[in-house]
Amino acid sequence: MRFSLRVRVVAEFLGTAFLVAAVVGSGITGERLAAGNIALALLANTIATGAALVALILTFGPVSGAHFNPVVSVMDAFEGGLTPSEAGGYCLAQVSGGVLGTLAAHAMFGMPWISLSHHARNGPAQLLSEFIATFGLLSVIWGCSRSRSSIVPFAVASYIVAAYWFTASTSFANPAVAIARSLSDTFAGIRPADVLPFVVAQFAGGLGATFLFRWIGPNLTSSAKDVVIPHMSEQ
Amino acid sequence: MRFSLRVRVVAEFLGTAFLVAAVVGSGITGERLAAGNIALALLANTIATGAALVALILTFGPVSGAHFNPVVSVMDAFEGGLTPSEAGGYCLAQVSGGVLGTLAAHAMFGMPWISLSHHARNGPAQLLSEFIATFGLLSVIWGCSRSRSSIVPFAVASYIVAAYWFTASTSFANPAVAIARSLSDTFAGIRPADVLPFVVAQFAGGLGATFLFRWIGPNLTSSAKDVVIPHMSEQ
Amino acid sequence: MRFSLRVRVVAEFLGTAFLVAAVVGSGITGERLAAGNIALALLANTIATGAALVALILTFGPVSGAHFNPVVSVMDAFEGGLTPSEAGGYCLAQVSGGVLGTLAAHAMFGMPWISLSHHARNGPAQLLSEFIATFGLLSVIWGCSRSRSSIVPFAVASYIVAAYWFTASTSFANPAVAIARSLSDTFAGIRPADVLPFVVAQFAGGLGATFLFRWIGPNLTSSAKDVVIPHMSEQ
Amino acid sequence: MRFSLRVRVVAEFLGTAFLVAAVVGSGITGERLAAGNIALALLANTIATGAALVALILTFGPVSGAHFNPVVSVMDAFEGGLTPSEAGGYCLAQVSGGVLGTLAAHAMFGMPWISLSHHARNGPAQLLSEFIATFGLLSVIWGCSRSRSSIVPFAVASYIVAAYWFTASTSFANPAVAIARSLSDTFAGIRPADVLPFVVAQFAGGLGATFLFRWIGPNLTSSAKDVVIPHMSEQ
Repeated sequence: MRFSLRVRVVAEFLGTAFLVAAVVGSGITGERLAAGNIALALLANTIATGAALVALILTFGPVSGAHFNPVVSVMDAFEGGLTPSEAGGYCLAQVSGGVLGTLAAHAMFGMPWISLSHHARNGPAQLLSEFIATFGLLSVIWGCSRSRSSIVPFAVASYIVAAYWFTASTSFANPAVAIARSLSDTFAGIRPADVLPFVVAQFAGGLGATFLFRWIGPNLTSSAKDVVIPHMSEQ
Repeated sequence: MRFSLRVRVVAEFLGTAFLVAAVVGSGITGERLAAGNIALALLANTIATGAALVALILTFGPVSGAHFNPVVSVMDAFEGGLTPSEAGGYCLAQVSGGVLGTLAAHAMFGMPWISLSHHARNGPAQLLSEFIATFGLLSVIWGCSRSRSSIVPFAVASYIVAAYWFTASTSFANPAVAIARSLSDTFAGIRPADVLPFVVAQFAGGLGATFLFRWIGPNLTSSAKDVVIPHMSEQ
Repeated sequence: MRFSLRVRVVAEFLGTAFLVAAVVGSGITGERLAAGNIALALLANTIATGAALVALILTFGPVSGAHFNPVVSVMDAFEGGLTPSEAGGYCLAQVSGGVLGTLAAHAMFGMPWISLSHHARNGPAQLLSEFIATFGLLSVIWGCSRSRSSIVPFAVASYIVAAYWFTASTSFANPAVAIARSLSDTFAGIRPADVLPFVVAQFAGGLGATFLFRWIGPNLTSSAKDVVIPHMSEQ
Repeated sequence: MRFSLRVRVVAEFLGTAFLVAAVVGSGITGERLAAGNIALALLANTIATGAALVALILTFGPVSGAHFNPVVSVMDAFEGGLTPSEAGGYCLAQVSGGVLGTLAAHAMFGMPWISLSHHARNGPAQLLSEFIATFGLLSVIWGCSRSRSSIVPFAVASYIVAAYWFTASTSFANPAVAIARSLSDTFAGIRPADVLPFVVAQFAGGLGATFLFRWIGPNLTSSAKDVVIPHMSEQ
């Protein structure tokens, strides 16, 4: 039995807020303490993000599916797991929750609540990175949620930990997180002007993975109502 | 079938002692070896704490629920999982166990058994950090213990690993641990004068999460006697 | 019920591509950011590789068994889990997927798509390392897939994380990955001339482990059709 | 159904060899690459050891129980899980396997096969560390193997990761490993003269934990034949 849409939207809002707070906040701590060693700052940022994903998907997964990511919600709607209006509610909650997460991180560190990032992230290599990162993320989600949905939190967190390092963009792979990080002129930031191309590349990658897993498993589509991620804890 | 209160209190005492010994001891090792690189010391401290939480919650969870934290025990009593006198016993065991943990860590490193910390941790940003850290911790516990209690050890450890980095206070989120760490003038210490505001912020955060999950799932309260964490291994 | 060979081969192709992209890409990021500290670069490389293995084996395991490694596929055929022609298809997909992974990593970082490595890795200590590394890897796979196949992704990833550090060769343990890494003149590269001896040592190690587990458990062979890794998610 | 003692002893031999090779080998790599930063070398050593424990316990646990540690085998015999002569065979296999592991690590790095360590590890703080470390290790094993034996590999590995940092001795907690490490004049070594006091402290700690868990759960003893770790995969 599903929770009401209202409850699910609150879960997406809070979960995305905590996720962004973890990304931005750990970036601030990492940069402050690492004495200029960027590999060490990114390592701390990576571990904190991966650990937060495990905890947050386990916590909110049973309520809303723990998407925290408009690409996931839109692709889920595309496959019949959410209605379009449910997906719209999810996306709004994710974007606004992400912004709250940035504010919360800044407040916890005694910084101005909003600061536009000057961190340029653009060019074809960055966009290819985001395409591949999101193609991989959705592949992980579709691949795992069909057969062993209880393992999705660990699979997603592991994937993001890897992608922070194997892509040139540190794998945003999430439009809500990209928007929220544009409001933080810190380690994790992205220049507002660079967000839109990132979002386009992310949706393209997500769409590619969705088509791939349609082709791999036609049974995925037919039983989508039962096994897609929003229900991952109902097994 | 529950263990007797006496056995459970011993489990809380020993578990909290080991947890604090892990936090304080790994802080000492980290600081000694890191040659002044605080990010590296905190990374070691984080990994040791998270790993200790996994091991200790798996070990003592089947006995006492592995709270190791007065906020958890008081909120559990609030929801009907423990009687008030059981919660009182748990809290006493946690605080005294935590103090023993500090002594043990100091003894293992050949230091004086007690040393009051001079590490100032105060101001609104620190208190907001503790509020958010404990709000998140109790959200993770309530969110996971309802539906998949066997995963709680991993969810809690992951959350704390993240919160060490994404909060400005390194996420104490635990009054017993805060008291115990005030007795250690080392990496993990906190000035005794700063403990009380931390504890207040922690209980406020815990209460907020408890109300949130009451609202999310009314079924939580009704079946609390069966599914709250003290029984997490009895599924 | 198995997927068609065509679908399984595509899964091996894509999975190996992502695995090699993770190894090569995280090596590039690690080396770029670590400011000359090779331990830190290798630590990032290790964590990214281990995390990628968890995510990729969980994702593609239900489809193809997630071998991503010719030694695994050939030994599986040796034990009756794959027909020789299936194993041939797997190996071709793994080698070509690995090459694509190198190209993708280079493209994501805006580098020339191919660059032959100058990183010499030869001599008896290196070959002993590869023999032991692959002996251990196949032992882990045979040991876990018999009794608890759902845990294989975590066992394999953990093993490789350890072997990156405890062998002198950083544990390639995989002919497809070795070939692919010879095309990258970066942190993770290997001189093309050094690949063949590595591959020989890897197959020798894999064969040793296969004979060991034949001796340990004769029941392994008899029921191989049901429990070997290609079916690890069908339990 | 148990494997024959001969097979189980081979599993203990090989598993302990790999464990010691992982400890010694990753110490060598860590020290070589860390450019003098001991925290970083120990971090690599920690991660490799923890990951090796996960992989090796998962691999050999179904065969022999994956003790790899004379304290565990002797305490298991004490509780009725092994006969005294079985425990003797296990201990011999562990000590000789550990020595092989040191040789293998040295050979992989092109070093002389044996070199007596000059690393002094003595004094009351070190011995208290070993007592506490082994008390904790056996508590984790008894606590987890009763109720959720499939989780033992993760609990043990997590515990050792933490104890590397929170004790002053880096938590040997294992007589076979201590003996083997005395034959390596590298990062992980221990002076031969310091081994015996370590072993005494380890057995004392293990005995303390065994008595504690006897007191906690009398049902442990009565059903020991079915649930102690040697059978952990037979659930």
